[in-house]
Amino acid sequence: MNHPINLKEKFGLFHEQWTPKIIAELNGQQLKLAKLEGEFVWHAHAEEDELFWVVRGTLQIAFREGLKTIRAGEILVVPKGVEHKPIAQEEVWVVLFEPAATKHTGEVEDERTVKDLEWI
Amino acid sequence: MNHPINLKEKFGLFHEQWTPKIIAELNGQQLKLAKLEGEFVWHAHAEEDELFWVVRGTLQIAFREGLKTIRAGEILVVPKGVEHKPIAQEEVWVVLFEPAATKHTGEVEDERTVKDLEWI
Repeated sequence: MNHPINLKEKFGLFHEQWTPKIIAELNGQQLKLAKLEGEFVWHAHAEEDELFWVVRGTLQIAFREGLKTIRAGEILVVPKGVEHKPIAQEEVWVVLFEPAATKHTGEVEDERTVKDLEWI
Repeated sequence: MNHPINLKEKFGLFHEQWTPKIIAELNGQQLKLAKLEGEFVWHAHAEEDELFWVVRGTLQIAFREGLKTIRAGEILVVPKGVEHKPIAQEEVWVVLFEPAATKHTGEVEDERTVKDLEWI
């Protein structure tokens, strides 16, 4: 059987920003942890909805129609095909839930695109 | 666009125990909130892995091979087909992530089986 996973412990295992780490997989979906700071690239995921769950700090996500603010303890689902750009004024810790196949930069290739995400 | 969802606010909207409420859907999966207290029925989900994320209290899950304890801030993935029985000594608040089709009592029909879960 699987063991319980402590989220704070897992967040303590890495410092890289914009590099999601996989902590669990179920039904073809993965649960990933990421630390974000600064502005990411505009991107969209053609086929995948993406869940952001902020556990520390305040995340802003820019959409073409305006900015959304997601505070610790809040979630936001970004539907597939919707262009978005995460922005974090200070470091934000976020849990992502999305299909295993999802690239974090979506259809966009950026110097921060990581092809094979690491399990922690 | 979707709006951010505040988890504490959503947990404040209901008191029933063992009756998961749906708060989001993505990629055919649903995010559900549940309040648990006491012992549930032994059950398994033949085709679906199930994620438990404890946000308040301490959840125990009995497996045929023994008991696991999941504290606030911890998650556990129960693989499909694995029999389990949630146990909560005191009320526990838990976030569930599982396919939209998952029944909370799995293959077992119990007086607590809810067929059409409510969105909140």
